[in-house]
Amino acid sequence: MNFNERLNQICSHKNSLVCVGLDVDLKKIPQFIHQQRTPQVTFSQAIIDATIEYAAAYKINTAFFEAYGTKGWDAMTKIVHYLPDDVIKIADAKRGDIGNTSKMYASAFFQEMNFDAITVNPFLGSDAVAPFLEDETKGAFILCHTTNKGAEDFQKFSNGETALYELVAEQVQKWNAHNNCGLVVGATYPDEMKHVRRLAPELPFLVPGLGAQGGDFELAIQYALMKNGNGAIFNFSRSVIYASGGEDFAEAAGQLAKQMRDEINQLR
Amino acid sequence: MNFNERLNQICSHKNSLVCVGLDVDLKKIPQFIHQQRTPQVTFSQAIIDATIEYAAAYKINTAFFEAYGTKGWDAMTKIVHYLPDDVIKIADAKRGDIGNTSKMYASAFFQEMNFDAITVNPFLGSDAVAPFLEDETKGAFILCHTTNKGAEDFQKFSNGETALYELVAEQVQKWNAHNNCGLVVGATYPDEMKHVRRLAPELPFLVPGLGAQGGDFELAIQYALMKNGNGAIFNFSRSVIYASGGEDFAEAAGQLAKQMRDEINQLR
Repeated sequence: MNFNERLNQICSHKNSLVCVGLDVDLKKIPQFIHQQRTPQVTFSQAIIDATIEYAAAYKINTAFFEAYGTKGWDAMTKIVHYLPDDVIKIADAKRGDIGNTSKMYASAFFQEMNFDAITVNPFLGSDAVAPFLEDETKGAFILCHTTNKGAEDFQKFSNGETALYELVAEQVQKWNAHNNCGLVVGATYPDEMKHVRRLAPELPFLVPGLGAQGGDFELAIQYALMKNGNGAIFNFSRSVIYASGGEDFAEAAGQLAKQMRDEINQLR
Repeated sequence: MNFNERLNQICSHKNSLVCVGLDVDLKKIPQFIHQQRTPQVTFSQAIIDATIEYAAAYKINTAFFEAYGTKGWDAMTKIVHYLPDDVIKIADAKRGDIGNTSKMYASAFFQEMNFDAITVNPFLGSDAVAPFLEDETKGAFILCHTTNKGAEDFQKFSNGETALYELVAEQVQKWNAHNNCGLVVGATYPDEMKHVRRLAPELPFLVPGLGAQGGDFELAIQYALMKNGNGAIFNFSRSVIYASGGEDFAEAAGQLAKQMRDEINQLR
């Protein structure tokens, strides 16, 4: 089964469009977890256990593990292996390089670590993205329009008719021969999201920007989803995993994940 | 001393504009090294010992280490610590994400691993690049025009007057308040390199594309350098580190590095 079919199937099976983002910052996890030998792993496993009923996908932000060196990379590997097979495992790695190098990144995340998908930066063009698309069972969510203010610096660069983010959407729609391409489209720019959905009617969106970054739920859900009410997953990182800083951190994360799932399902 | 001053000083001191790229692929290193406990480290240390006299900088391509998981990350850490202080240590990582995530990447490469510089993808804009520029002693080489065919997909996207890669050059010139920004400009597009030098007269270039990728030496050197004959380092990866597949692999790499240094110096 190709990646986009599988994503769709898992979202239907779990009746959820929630992605939980594991941006595991040692400075933000509860103090008592620091006594554990591998605090990032202990924290993440507890969050996963508490949220797994409500989540269709998990997104591991590689930066937060690389910051802790070899130990951090080892923790990331353990966490991705802890995730069960009936959720989508996304490496939020934003990689992208010339062909022979992208091939090594694909190998790192798809073979060495068994992620199902990766976020990819399109700046280097089609041959830089291609190695991530060779295996139809693995997916690439390509950055189209990000959530941050800096998105306006280059992504909005326009020739008067088309802006760069729109060109990316059009191109990725063409690269989707194996039905394993998606787009990262931030909820903080709803008008742009609307354009992207029009330009790329068949691509699933990975939508950051709800939760801590303050994107509007109603607009994001209205514009991101396809007519069938599927076609997007909505990521929550800080707002879910740091819902409580106390002993009840996992329970609180579970409650938040459930609430996000239900709010989204009501608006679909 | 800020990064660009230090880069300049080291290039002058070593009388070299050569950067050696450590794209250490286990499939390509000599067979007998596989008997070592950490072949990537053994190979890289031998290459470094043989080339150190001729190189101003080393560029470690993170993908080739991530592909081997935790072991690979550990090898990369050992290699960067093996490099002496009188060369520039560049993480060719092509990172870039929203602010709080780029901050973690900066911490990974500048604090946890003590690289001097990193390659950064500009697609997410100024706030994604800013965390890499906070410490003036650390540098960021921002992708401007890459060597590959796919560079034409988005980097050449133009409004009729300015193409995206030119806009990147102009912007990065403005971000250079701490004199620690550089640009990645591929030797395989000499005309574009000429434009970039005009738009960003004060920024050092990291130039891939000579060697295995076939860029023209004379044009690259003519267009990349500033009027004072400095302002660029030229990277050689495969052509140097795999110069021989035999027992003399390190010696052959040293000879090639010397030859590249001398050819570039003659054309300056």
